[in-house]
Amino acid sequence: MAKNRASWSKRDVISILDFSREELELLFEETDKFVTQEKAPNTLSEKIVATAFFEPSTRTRLSFSVAALRLGAKVIDLSPDVSSLLKGESFADTISMLEGYADLIVLRHPSEGAALFAAELCEKPVINGGDGSQHHPTQAMLDLYTVSRTLGQIDGLVYAVVGDLKYSRTASSLLYALTKFKPKMVHLVSPEALALRKEVYQRLKEVSLPMEVHSSIEEVISQVDVIYLTRIQKERFADPDEYKRLKGSYVITKSLLEKSHAIVLHPLPRLEELPYEVDRTPNAAYIKQAHWGVPLRMALLNLILGDSQ
Amino acid sequence: MAKNRASWSKRDVISILDFSREELELLFEETDKFVTQEKAPNTLSEKIVATAFFEPSTRTRLSFSVAALRLGAKVIDLSPDVSSLLKGESFADTISMLEGYADLIVLRHPSEGAALFAAELCEKPVINGGDGSQHHPTQAMLDLYTVSRTLGQIDGLVYAVVGDLKYSRTASSLLYALTKFKPKMVHLVSPEALALRKEVYQRLKEVSLPMEVHSSIEEVISQVDVIYLTRIQKERFADPDEYKRLKGSYVITKSLLEKSHAIVLHPLPRLEELPYEVDRTPNAAYIKQAHWGVPLRMALLNLILGDSQ
Amino acid sequence: MAKNRASWSKRDVISILDFSREELELLFEETDKFVTQEKAPNTLSEKIVATAFFEPSTRTRLSFSVAALRLGAKVIDLSPDVSSLLKGESFADTISMLEGYADLIVLRHPSEGAALFAAELCEKPVINGGDGSQHHPTQAMLDLYTVSRTLGQIDGLVYAVVGDLKYSRTASSLLYALTKFKPKMVHLVSPEALALRKEVYQRLKEVSLPMEVHSSIEEVISQVDVIYLTRIQKERFADPDEYKRLKGSYVITKSLLEKSHAIVLHPLPRLEELPYEVDRTPNAAYIKQAHWGVPLRMALLNLILGDSQ
Repeated sequence: MAKNRASWSKRDVISILDFSREELELLFEETDKFVTQEKAPNTLSEKIVATAFFEPSTRTRLSFSVAALRLGAKVIDLSPDVSSLLKGESFADTISMLEGYADLIVLRHPSEGAALFAAELCEKPVINGGDGSQHHPTQAMLDLYTVSRTLGQIDGLVYAVVGDLKYSRTASSLLYALTKFKPKMVHLVSPEALALRKEVYQRLKEVSLPMEVHSSIEEVISQVDVIYLTRIQKERFADPDEYKRLKGSYVITKSLLEKSHAIVLHPLPRLEELPYEVDRTPNAAYIKQAHWGVPLRMALLNLILGDSQ
Repeated sequence: MAKNRASWSKRDVISILDFSREELELLFEETDKFVTQEKAPNTLSEKIVATAFFEPSTRTRLSFSVAALRLGAKVIDLSPDVSSLLKGESFADTISMLEGYADLIVLRHPSEGAALFAAELCEKPVINGGDGSQHHPTQAMLDLYTVSRTLGQIDGLVYAVVGDLKYSRTASSLLYALTKFKPKMVHLVSPEALALRKEVYQRLKEVSLPMEVHSSIEEVISQVDVIYLTRIQKERFADPDEYKRLKGSYVITKSLLEKSHAIVLHPLPRLEELPYEVDRTPNAAYIKQAHWGVPLRMALLNLILGDSQ
Repeated sequence: MAKNRASWSKRDVISILDFSREELELLFEETDKFVTQEKAPNTLSEKIVATAFFEPSTRTRLSFSVAALRLGAKVIDLSPDVSSLLKGESFADTISMLEGYADLIVLRHPSEGAALFAAELCEKPVINGGDGSQHHPTQAMLDLYTVSRTLGQIDGLVYAVVGDLKYSRTASSLLYALTKFKPKMVHLVSPEALALRKEVYQRLKEVSLPMEVHSSIEEVISQVDVIYLTRIQKERFADPDEYKRLKGSYVITKSLLEKSHAIVLHPLPRLEELPYEVDRTPNAAYIKQAHWGVPLRMALLNLILGDSQ
């Protein structure tokens, strides 16, 4: 355990693939402490955390801010200047500036690889708060934590990942995360136009993640333990009529869940794919999931920036 | 008194109508402490306050932020994400997110009833920082505090509420607040097009608030003790000429005040209705009023979030 | 020394011309402490610093924020409301509002004289974070600190100030700062269209700053000890072809520096005038310069707001 703890110290968090099962399990145990603890320790009182969001994301930005503040850290935010930064200086110079000001950078960026590039430039730890279309490692950590603490296990379960598997970085990240565990089966449920990218599918095949492709949630609902739902955005469809025709197959309704014991996860924010009527079903796990976002990120920041013990 | 103090604990602040005279007087006494105290107590050091302003308002946002910070609380602000939130997820989901992050939410919203809706959804206290066209309870508290601490009383005075009574939520809120006290008379002074909404007038009539309607401040200036001035915005008039013709009747000039002992209040920001020449008259109370915004909100946050004693 | 320290207390920082050589040297000595100290003292824990940037400036805003936070102060930021403030109330009323909320205001404004005007209105210290085209005093302090701590002296050196001398407030501020010391020579290197404003040149002449005007850096490169480079913005040229033709004369390349022992300073952000290849030359001092921005501003805030000793 002590070894794992040391492996987190001052570490970049770029892709969930960079973490071992043991490291993730340690993170989950640390998260448990912050879930139950009323009063947060003041472990980061000498630290400054910078949030640099080149794409808006309320939940990710605020959950990191709250996590840092609760541990006593100070937070600086790049938001007021993002629009002029995008027109102005290079990304490399912006990162170098933040390296001078902060002890850790949380970055969200539309470009694939932006977080990795920042981490290579910067001697301070960089946390990827989502970049490109594949990586959002802290969301995947939260997803697995929620499965683990709700169902008692991650291994041996049947998962359905539903919706836009092409553009949703949370879907890809969760699939990468599952390769660190032993799921019984992963059903990929999406319209063809929003199917998982070939390169992601190949990578998962190589590590023998058991997967099946489906075009409707109805086909698998009776077998799954975990439904992971993502937003389907109208704009992704060339033809609005196709959107109307297809969207029903990726909406989780209350009546659909009556046939199912599965827990429902969603990274939020949601659109039509997750109606409010589901909030009060026993299946809904996404509200708890959202609330655990802060303690999980407290545990993460504390492992990375706190004194190794 | 102890009973009143308990009645403030964990309370929502949606409309000034929800508070009793005794509760307001307790708030004013607590405010006195923060006005005179040099060093603020660190009573909220474990708390996080979220400011969620779906409409810009510098004074209200910053005075709540400063009040929270001075009491040791941390502040998170939704501003950088407001534009994308307005296009994106539901207001209910946004409030639910903030409920997970903060111990109290200060909300400003253009829609009537937004604060009440948020308070119903959210188990944490919600403070209405202004919604729709009628409610801005903390401004009304500040207005009455200023009258009370400047003139020594709220009862028995003659008030003139002047300007845009139709769209100004601060004017309606003050009138609602006055129903908790015993003003001698309230003069409503506005152009016809900007007269008090019928439903507000009716409600005030029902509780027998003594009111008279006027179309010019000149008609009542010699009798009033308190002038409450609001902005008249050009855009409210269909005809720009009408604006030019009328605005003079709702401007408080230095020469007008020479005939008057009245104190002048204004929620700020101001436009042409309150020329700078008035700032140095003995009548001007709005600068003091603005500076008392922080101690009043410190008292409010402390009563709601501090330990009940 | 004690006398100098007192002269900094509660002081406005509007123009570098307002400070004596002794005062600047005291600031530099105080900065040394914050450069070497690992743990910042909590001297400003009762203070609130407001950043009011009516023009975006990431480095200046964040370096002041970080400096204040590291000293234990709280920071409030006007950014979310700047666009509505620019349409709305007067600048004077905005400053008066901030005076009520904060213990010190850091201001950036496009208009010449905005900081002076604010300082006259406001009893709390105002720091000019850049206004108009001539003044950015804390950047000039940082520039001279970097020269002093890199070359061991400010006097007796040969300087080249290169690029846009007309619109760059950092260039003018540095020139004003040099009048407090004894440089051997200052070369002004710019295209004619971007030459130093006559009024600035006159003012420098009056205090006998030794100056020479050049149109290319090549002319002086072999003699200079310090190259101060500023951005040349395409938009300043009426004719894009002229920009293309001229810009080469104001770019500092690695091969150019092979003939030179000069250190290179740049206020950042940079554009084409300072290629990345220069970053790894021994001449590059601008990265160190940027990192010293925080300790210098810590020293400044501490001298102004801390207890005089």
